[in-house]
Amino acid sequence: MIVPRLIERKRDGGRLEPEEIRELVMDYSAGRVPDYQMSALLMAIYFQGLDRGEMGSLMEAMLESGKKLDLSRLRTARIDKHSTGGVGDKTSLILAPLVASLGVAVPMMSGRGLGHTGGTLDKLESIPGFRASLTMVEAERQIARIGCAMLSQTDEMVPADRKIYALRDATATVEVIPLIAASIMSKKLAEGLSGLVLDIKRGSGSFLPELEDDLALANAMIDLGASHGCPVVALLTAMDRPLGLACGNALEVAEALDVLRGGGPGDLIEVTFALGARMLVQGTVASTLDAAYAMMHEAIASGGALRKFEEIIEAQGGDPAVVREASRLPWAPYTAVFTAERDGIIQSVDPRAIGYGIIALGGGRTKMEDRIDPAVGFVIDAKPGNHVARDQTLGMVHARNKADLEVGLRVLAEAIVVGEGTPSVLPLVSHVVTARGVETIADQETENRTGARRQ
Amino acid sequence: MIVPRLIERKRDGGRLEPEEIRELVMDYSAGRVPDYQMSALLMAIYFQGLDRGEMGSLMEAMLESGKKLDLSRLRTARIDKHSTGGVGDKTSLILAPLVASLGVAVPMMSGRGLGHTGGTLDKLESIPGFRASLTMVEAERQIARIGCAMLSQTDEMVPADRKIYALRDATATVEVIPLIAASIMSKKLAEGLSGLVLDIKRGSGSFLPELEDDLALANAMIDLGASHGCPVVALLTAMDRPLGLACGNALEVAEALDVLRGGGPGDLIEVTFALGARMLVQGTVASTLDAAYAMMHEAIASGGALRKFEEIIEAQGGDPAVVREASRLPWAPYTAVFTAERDGIIQSVDPRAIGYGIIALGGGRTKMEDRIDPAVGFVIDAKPGNHVARDQTLGMVHARNKADLEVGLRVLAEAIVVGEGTPSVLPLVSHVVTARGVETIADQETENRTGARRQ
Repeated sequence: MIVPRLIERKRDGGRLEPEEIRELVMDYSAGRVPDYQMSALLMAIYFQGLDRGEMGSLMEAMLESGKKLDLSRLRTARIDKHSTGGVGDKTSLILAPLVASLGVAVPMMSGRGLGHTGGTLDKLESIPGFRASLTMVEAERQIARIGCAMLSQTDEMVPADRKIYALRDATATVEVIPLIAASIMSKKLAEGLSGLVLDIKRGSGSFLPELEDDLALANAMIDLGASHGCPVVALLTAMDRPLGLACGNALEVAEALDVLRGGGPGDLIEVTFALGARMLVQGTVASTLDAAYAMMHEAIASGGALRKFEEIIEAQGGDPAVVREASRLPWAPYTAVFTAERDGIIQSVDPRAIGYGIIALGGGRTKMEDRIDPAVGFVIDAKPGNHVARDQTLGMVHARNKADLEVGLRVLAEAIVVGEGTPSVLPLVSHVVTARGVETIADQETENRTGARRQ
Repeated sequence: MIVPRLIERKRDGGRLEPEEIRELVMDYSAGRVPDYQMSALLMAIYFQGLDRGEMGSLMEAMLESGKKLDLSRLRTARIDKHSTGGVGDKTSLILAPLVASLGVAVPMMSGRGLGHTGGTLDKLESIPGFRASLTMVEAERQIARIGCAMLSQTDEMVPADRKIYALRDATATVEVIPLIAASIMSKKLAEGLSGLVLDIKRGSGSFLPELEDDLALANAMIDLGASHGCPVVALLTAMDRPLGLACGNALEVAEALDVLRGGGPGDLIEVTFALGARMLVQGTVASTLDAAYAMMHEAIASGGALRKFEEIIEAQGGDPAVVREASRLPWAPYTAVFTAERDGIIQSVDPRAIGYGIIALGGGRTKMEDRIDPAVGFVIDAKPGNHVARDQTLGMVHARNKADLEVGLRVLAEAIVVGEGTPSVLPLVSHVVTARGVETIADQETENRTGARRQ
């Protein structure tokens, strides 16, 4: 295989054969193809794309590069949820115990935050003692025993994907739909899933802000899943403002615990339940969405979901008492209140500004080696469309020192815009995409379903 | 400097600032920017281009990465010729001694062959003992003493260009006009030139077959030269068939010697003289092209040009007797004659097929580390448009063993097409490009000039 010829062919708009892609990924994993050739090829793919066949071959090759979780002995369905990443998005922390408590196994492999979006692993590791780096055998045993493990990608799982992803991140070749789809699906299929629910974020704070791209990504992943008998359902959800109030690692764990205890902000509950309902239906423990919603409300009301989270934390070395005492989570020594400068209507809360603000406070990364402070972040009460009065509290900064409080207040002043008119915001859950096609969701549907049970 | 942000900006069609380009090249040279980021950026440049300002900044940065030849003590002009590369193109071997013998200093830095086109260094090194790897001080002294040095790029000259070029070669990012222009001009300006003549090859066997690209390249290099007070004249010459008869390293040296002795094929003389005339006018030893042609004919007739080649070879450790006895050059042990299979007219002699044929015989490289056999190659009598009779000799294969003779004969059978009609061929020298614009050259002009003196 002469790699410059392959790069040249892709550069000129040609097609790579399945066998070529397989050999390339194998040789790259083994260090026989250098990074500089792979990055040139990735940039050529940025401009010329991959067709469905090429994307499928790439995913197969990455999947083949490592081991899969062996969950074949489980009698229950194995369903995971994956999000394309947002700010304040702590749905995974709620869904894993909630769905597992209802008899569906959840083998949840997550990543760390990089750039403006947070990562589930960082949030989990704000729980004192929590260990996400399980071996595959540990994960398999824990899932068999308690129905859920929340782990980081192991060295043995899709190593080719990890190597290629790190290279993409360093070479501005991340935003390529077939590469994103193949990367996510190779990891998810390595979990040995029987179904997958995707949360594809839309809007200014998302990775792919355009609806067209979001639908293309959904369809690509549905195709890839179908080729392995893994049905995929994608929900398109709003990321033109943060989800929930808390933005920052430990703060988000505390908010997830609020939801598991029956409280928490409505928008977070609405998105979480919409995703959870699809997981339960895919996992065949609920036959309708309405039944799934009822089960989730019951699991929260009964304390079953919270107990499952306690079990997971304990199984992975964390302090299980955090589920009852959020004060055991790391807490920032300094806080400051941010208030409205004028009467008006909240026009926007910019998720990117908040995400980068968390990094500025020390709670996120600009490169993989950065250490993070789990305690810092924001709690933002303001939602676009809210009427606010001058001096009303809109949010709070949690910082590790006084200087950072000022930084945080400036971030909120920039991120939260108060004005006159009624802002247009994206519906929280706007589309459902399955192998059968795209359905738009009536604005109030998920809200009513969630709300009806909560009153 | 956050390199992925620069890559992203170029990828999205944005512009890099001079200071960013300077820092990037400096950091890449020093190993602080990894190859994989540079190759992704180069591929983004392949798709998005560089504007004139960016190209100029790139050239400056590469030039700054190393040292320049110090020829400031010379009282003569310092003129070099550069070709974009062709098959059978041995004009440099003739021009360096010819022009130097007429009182213009020629600091000629050349490269090795890679791909289907040959390299002047490889040709020179077929002269027993010839050493092209001069230090800068050696080159400066030799040029001061005898007016010419024919050397390879030293480690100290434009190291950034060498590193970037090697990367481009391995990542299918060679064919990008602003990168080509900046690379060539950084090397040429490091020679401390007072003028440069470019030979830009056109047609199927050239690097950039399209006329539009050739003119763009010429203009880019003229601009870059002007920014350093180095006037550049570009001739566009035919590479839809090999130049001259000999194709292969030692065979080409022998043919260059034929020309210096007053013989040699007409097409080779025509192109060589057209280039040489511009060098002499740029070097201000001739005030008109006609005067320059006369001087060159005289330098050959008097033996002055041949003696200068002898001096250069001797100064660089080679066997000076080769200039009188071509048999002292390496000679292949096996030869075979290739004849016409039918009566007809030569339709084409494909230079790429011949170039790759030389590689197949062991006389060229597919990668930089390959060793080459200097003796092998082809001598091809056939020129497009020639009438030939069945069994007439069209060419000869020079090979290191019998099996390779068969390989060589198959190459010729593929490369030389005999048919019926009159083929259309490119004029040998078609355009002259200077800072003042493009002139087309009347078909017979250079031929008449050359021929008038030769009869």
